[in-house]
Amino acid sequence: MKIADVGEFGLIHTISSLCSIRQSPVLLGIGDDAAAITFKADTVLATTDMLIEGIHFDLNYTTFFQLGYKTLAVNVSDIAAMGGQPEYFFLSLGIPPFFETQWIEELYRGINGLATQTKVHVAGGDTCSARSGNFVLSGVLLGSTDKVISRSGARVGDTIYVTNNLGDSAAGLALLQAHGKTANFDDNSFDKNRYTFFEPLVRRHLMPVPRFLIDTTEITAMIDISDGLLQDLGHICDQSGTGAKIYLDKIPISDALKKASQYLNRDPLDFALSGGEDYELLFTSSASLENCIAIGEITKEDRVMVDKNNQTIPVKLNKGYDHFKPS
Amino acid sequence: MKIADVGEFGLIHTISSLCSIRQSPVLLGIGDDAAAITFKADTVLATTDMLIEGIHFDLNYTTFFQLGYKTLAVNVSDIAAMGGQPEYFFLSLGIPPFFETQWIEELYRGINGLATQTKVHVAGGDTCSARSGNFVLSGVLLGSTDKVISRSGARVGDTIYVTNNLGDSAAGLALLQAHGKTANFDDNSFDKNRYTFFEPLVRRHLMPVPRFLIDTTEITAMIDISDGLLQDLGHICDQSGTGAKIYLDKIPISDALKKASQYLNRDPLDFALSGGEDYELLFTSSASLENCIAIGEITKEDRVMVDKNNQTIPVKLNKGYDHFKPS
Repeated sequence: MKIADVGEFGLIHTISSLCSIRQSPVLLGIGDDAAAITFKADTVLATTDMLIEGIHFDLNYTTFFQLGYKTLAVNVSDIAAMGGQPEYFFLSLGIPPFFETQWIEELYRGINGLATQTKVHVAGGDTCSARSGNFVLSGVLLGSTDKVISRSGARVGDTIYVTNNLGDSAAGLALLQAHGKTANFDDNSFDKNRYTFFEPLVRRHLMPVPRFLIDTTEITAMIDISDGLLQDLGHICDQSGTGAKIYLDKIPISDALKKASQYLNRDPLDFALSGGEDYELLFTSSASLENCIAIGEITKEDRVMVDKNNQTIPVKLNKGYDHFKPS
Repeated sequence: MKIADVGEFGLIHTISSLCSIRQSPVLLGIGDDAAAITFKADTVLATTDMLIEGIHFDLNYTTFFQLGYKTLAVNVSDIAAMGGQPEYFFLSLGIPPFFETQWIEELYRGINGLATQTKVHVAGGDTCSARSGNFVLSGVLLGSTDKVISRSGARVGDTIYVTNNLGDSAAGLALLQAHGKTANFDDNSFDKNRYTFFEPLVRRHLMPVPRFLIDTTEITAMIDISDGLLQDLGHICDQSGTGAKIYLDKIPISDALKKASQYLNRDPLDFALSGGEDYELLFTSSASLENCIAIGEITKEDRVMVDKNNQTIPVKLNKGYDHFKPS
């Protein structure tokens, strides 16, 4: 059924029934002027992301379920990168009127899937018609923490860690761009042989799993990798006033990424260093941490990579993706 | 200068310099994964609004300064209607690349004008390119309160109050629609004689001043009037399980509205009862409150209006503005 047929109130009713707002500790959710909420810790964390069709996502590649999941996931990742627990999600939608109600239901199912896993309450938002434009999502995630981990606390000598393999998501995007919809793992028409190797990469791009550190006591600085390892490590260095040295042979690269890079005729390190949208955590600590992958150390000034032949390569950062520059 | 020329980082730099984020108590603002903030009271209030060009505003009528002011004002009004103090504002923008940087600066000047008055910290947000669409603003305002005033607490016998004249804003919009840009009070080409009477109406539409109740101790239910008096009183009745009786000769109507209604050949009560976007507070209390305008009382069941001849007229509510219905 078209949204123009059920109308705004019908749509809000549908969304409300898919939201977790009636669970405590939301004192008041959808249906008053504002949501009234309480937090687990005194310092509240707030992050916001706007996603526009054609800029941030392509409905040819992603299902609505995946889009909903990812919209929440990237916000959860931001809260996790501050050392916080996510608590309340608000989503505003600008919806083209030809959309099917079912699509928005699928979107909320994707959101709720991750919301349940991460104990997030979907607490409200706004819906309006985007009559002449593209589909727009604007999410706000609130969380709280007793200890804020910023980007600025790295100290010379700290070890640099990441939580998992890098580059998978960017390679997944490259596969989607090369193969279109057929590379999406929900579609069975994709060649089964390749599917086995590529499916985890495409999944990493479309449904990134946000990471959490269970114990942040010894973490000095943290960021989630959205722009790519080099770019985001650069943010830590900029704000901490330090340099960094990373060892290329320590960068964790999956077998699937190696295989896909061969297939795409690309260097897997390109994806891992600059690809972006990994949503792994990148953090620094003077402690020796188990279950985390050490890839380098914080230095006084220079930003360098060391290759397998022990050659030092200076890191030259481009400016990253700029939404307003012509591509 | 075009935004495509300064780029995303140039734009963020400009916005940061116009924001109040460096003031305490924002622990961390723009430039980390999330803002870290603390609140004055334990119960946090969160409200969110998405505004899309061509649906919610028309750049032929409004200046960017006015648009910025109003974007914050409607959110402040929502927090005030919950009995709260607004504290932190986050704004995400989807900007067409042909926009001038100066326009966004003007927008933030409008926001900051009201933010300063209402002690709101402009704490962050997101900017991205709306390449093929219209200008989109998505605002989130966080506040806090020790006592939440919901829509559901009205009791039979309570007096119904409003904070000020109704209908001015809707008449202002009608004047803008009749005269276009020339009715905007910043434009001197509008006929001076009419200008004197109409300017306050147009101003009420383009730059609504949010209201606050200094003392909410004796308030039982509250809402801000955005959809029109009848519609919003209906929300209080729905959620409180009551009826309401209002006296038409007690509805506060300005001289400017009377004059404009004559000019537009409309009944001023139409604007006052159903016009919307007043952003006056509508609330109920069993106490006799000075400095507030009593317009009726909460009853057991029926929703009626009493006219100057003491005739009782049943209130029939239409469904209000529906974003998704073809107009």
